[in-house]
Amino acid sequence: MTSNTQQSAVTVLGLGPMGRALAGAFLAAGVRTTVWNRTPGKERELVERGAAVARSPEEAAGASPLTVICVVNYDAVDAVVRRPEVADALKGRTLVNLTADTPDRARDTAAWAGDHGIGYLDGAIMTPTPTIGTPAGVFLHSGPEELYRAHRPTLDALGGTHTHLGADVGRAAAYDIALLDIFWTAMAGYAHALAVARAEGISARELAPFAQGIGAILPPLFEEGAADADSGTYSGEGNPITSAVSSMAHIVHTSEAHGIDASVMRAAEGLARRVIGQGHGDDGFLRVTELLNPSA
Amino acid sequence: MTSNTQQSAVTVLGLGPMGRALAGAFLAAGVRTTVWNRTPGKERELVERGAAVARSPEEAAGASPLTVICVVNYDAVDAVVRRPEVADALKGRTLVNLTADTPDRARDTAAWAGDHGIGYLDGAIMTPTPTIGTPAGVFLHSGPEELYRAHRPTLDALGGTHTHLGADVGRAAAYDIALLDIFWTAMAGYAHALAVARAEGISARELAPFAQGIGAILPPLFEEGAADADSGTYSGEGNPITSAVSSMAHIVHTSEAHGIDASVMRAAEGLARRVIGQGHGDDGFLRVTELLNPSA
Repeated sequence: MTSNTQQSAVTVLGLGPMGRALAGAFLAAGVRTTVWNRTPGKERELVERGAAVARSPEEAAGASPLTVICVVNYDAVDAVVRRPEVADALKGRTLVNLTADTPDRARDTAAWAGDHGIGYLDGAIMTPTPTIGTPAGVFLHSGPEELYRAHRPTLDALGGTHTHLGADVGRAAAYDIALLDIFWTAMAGYAHALAVARAEGISARELAPFAQGIGAILPPLFEEGAADADSGTYSGEGNPITSAVSSMAHIVHTSEAHGIDASVMRAAEGLARRVIGQGHGDDGFLRVTELLNPSA
Repeated sequence: MTSNTQQSAVTVLGLGPMGRALAGAFLAAGVRTTVWNRTPGKERELVERGAAVARSPEEAAGASPLTVICVVNYDAVDAVVRRPEVADALKGRTLVNLTADTPDRARDTAAWAGDHGIGYLDGAIMTPTPTIGTPAGVFLHSGPEELYRAHRPTLDALGGTHTHLGADVGRAAAYDIALLDIFWTAMAGYAHALAVARAEGISARELAPFAQGIGAILPPLFEEGAADADSGTYSGEGNPITSAVSSMAHIVHTSEAHGIDASVMRAAEGLARRVIGQGHGDDGFLRVTELLNPSA
């Protein structure tokens, strides 16, 4: 704990599971913490641990130089902060928005904050609530670097790894979207694999050790594929996209033969077949990236 | 190298990249190896390393007690082995089919083999060609256990981990389908994430370290999710499917705002929304498994 942290103060708006985890981490690090939630009752344990409770978001925002908000989405952010009294209270202070939403919403909120003389940083939390306050937390931040540097000592109280991605305030949300894209697509694949395995008399517990093996080979392939994507050359050496569509067709066939919806794989196979149709059958599967968004 | 291996002999039908890797591993382990390929020329390096070349698949099959076939799919398998001369040559011997296809094709091939007095094992190779002959290879096998045990010493020459999944000959293909389902769906997610990141001015190299972090959290989630799937109870504690669809909608919105096809995520989001529509919004995302294939 640095002396900076001991002297600092923070307001947390929103006490859902993540908001409570954030406030709890600030308290544990000795940061003077003021909390507010739309509906009362969620602050009880935090108050026992020393948090001050504000009666309104404007009172909460006025209590600290830094306000952190983490609610369900930016509609909820707007409902809390885009009111004259709250904007007045935040004027000359800093708002760090750790709510998940889209890059355009982040940029729009930054424009609103700028219009009202509010310092604004936008962030994304990439790890679940139990990681907050521990070394396992991963936080992404974007917005003015000097503002980030000024509040970094307080944010450090949240533990984990903090990365400032640049001055473009939409950048944290853009990383968040891209990473959640990988995550939820992979989870959709796992749910589907479990359904197909079940139809073939294979329990999830039987499949899981091998599924974990598949999970383990992804990170190095992501690394290799990144170089391909940036260079726009997708070597299919040893594993051309024609071979991928053959596997994909087997998956669709086996699923549908069991009456199982295969819409996710059908969509993926369709993309791969279009790449082949464009004459790139010898390339690797990641050439789908060029189909989706051609490099300039 | 066991004395069994030294005395053994094997035939490899099909000399694509995987067939050549298999034959090369057998030769490296001192197994007497006969090879055949539909089109000549691919056997050159293997011959230099001691392989015998057969002029026909029947001559090849007659040269060894064990024949391994690994070609593009079961249509190609049928074109090679489902001919009277080849069936005659294989009679009383064993055919191990390491070609990837669907479980129903595996079962159909086993029935044909049974009708012709041919011992039949069906397998799947879960790792790429460079792993063959190394400890990193992963081989799945299914079919009669005594047949598997009898040929295990020869198959061990391929290195890696060999797992016999049971007497149901379709089981290796079923595992293969389920595991490739996870793999290719995840890769489709990665290709899409790279396209969205590019649209947001994020290079693949910038995204890759964080993408690897997402890859790393999947295996433990697969393990946890397996217990849920087998019990049919999908706890959404801390991460309900309502929160997943919120992320998915952000991904779809951001993609399409950039003109990027989001058909894969749209399909996944549709499944999740149907789960919520069925009244299971508090459950975790993997409840999609029940939608796709309800447990009995």
